[in-house]
Amino acid sequence: MKVEYINPFVRALGKTFRTMLDCELQRGGVFAAIEESPLHDISGVIGLSGRAIGTVVVSFSREVALNAASTLLLHETREIDADVVDAVGEIANMVAGAAKAELEEFNMSISLPTVIVGANHEVRFPSNVVPICVPFQSPWGELTLCVGLSEILQPVA
Amino acid sequence: MKVEYINPFVRALGKTFRTMLDCELQRGGVFAAIEESPLHDISGVIGLSGRAIGTVVVSFSREVALNAASTLLLHETREIDADVVDAVGEIANMVAGAAKAELEEFNMSISLPTVIVGANHEVRFPSNVVPICVPFQSPWGELTLCVGLSEILQPVA
Repeated sequence: MKVEYINPFVRALGKTFRTMLDCELQRGGVFAAIEESPLHDISGVIGLSGRAIGTVVVSFSREVALNAASTLLLHETREIDADVVDAVGEIANMVAGAAKAELEEFNMSISLPTVIVGANHEVRFPSNVVPICVPFQSPWGELTLCVGLSEILQPVA
Repeated sequence: MKVEYINPFVRALGKTFRTMLDCELQRGGVFAAIEESPLHDISGVIGLSGRAIGTVVVSFSREVALNAASTLLLHETREIDADVVDAVGEIANMVAGAAKAELEEFNMSISLPTVIVGANHEVRFPSNVVPICVPFQSPWGELTLCVGLSEILQPVA
C-alpha cells in the first residue's frame, strides 16, 4: 500500500482519542511489517471494502483499553468485560469511519468490528499485502495502529 | 442475525473443504454465543459490508491449519508460517466469497482477510450483534465457523 494512505487513519486515531477520550497521543515511526511493531492485549479489527479493500487494526495495552472504556462509559472499569470489548470495537469503528471519509476516492464501506482478546495474539495480513503499522504512546500506555489496504484497479461493479 | 443466514456459510465451508482439500466435515449444533463454542489456534477473519454488515471467522486447530495448508500448497508444512497464514486467509476468503454470492440480496463485498495466531485468543463481536457459531469435526481435528451479520434497514447509498 502507498505509505500516504496511513495518514487518514493516524489523524482519525489521534482525533478520536483527543475528542472522545481527552487523551493526547504521541506517534512513533512507521513500520512496514507487523512483526516489528508488536500488538498489545486487545485489538479491534475492522474490514474495509470498495474500490480498495483492507483491514484496520487498533491494538491497545490492557491499561489503554480500560482507561479508554472507563472514559467512554463514564464509570471505572477494571476488567476486560463486554463493555470494554464494545468500547474497543467502537474506537476501531470511529477510526475506520473517519479515515474512509477522507479516502473517498475508494468509496469504501466498513464491516462490523471484531475484537481480539489474548495476551499473546498476533494479527497477520496476507503475504501480498504489506500493512503499515504505527506505534503510539499515551498517558495510559502503548497502542498500535496497523492498516493494510489494497487498491482494486478496476472499479467494483 | 437470522439463524438461516448461517446456512450459506456452512455450505461454503463444507464445499471448500470437500473440493479444495478433499476433506469431509461433520457439523455440530448451532451456538448463539461465541463463548460457548471456543476458538482454536489460528483464525481467519474477514469483513463483509453492503446492505448488511458482518464478520466471518473460521478458526482451526493447529493440526487442521497445517493439514489444510499442506494440501493447498502441495507440500508438507509443520509450522504456522506465512504460507499457513495465507492458506487460512484464503479459506476464509473462499467461504465469505461463496456465501456472499448466495446472500445476493445484501450486495456485500468482502474485506482483506486477517489471520489471528495465538493459542488462547478470543474473538468478540459487538454486544448488539449475536453471532452464530457452528463447530465442525474433520479427520484432521476441530474447526469452528462464527458469523455475525447485521442487516442495514436503509440501503447504503
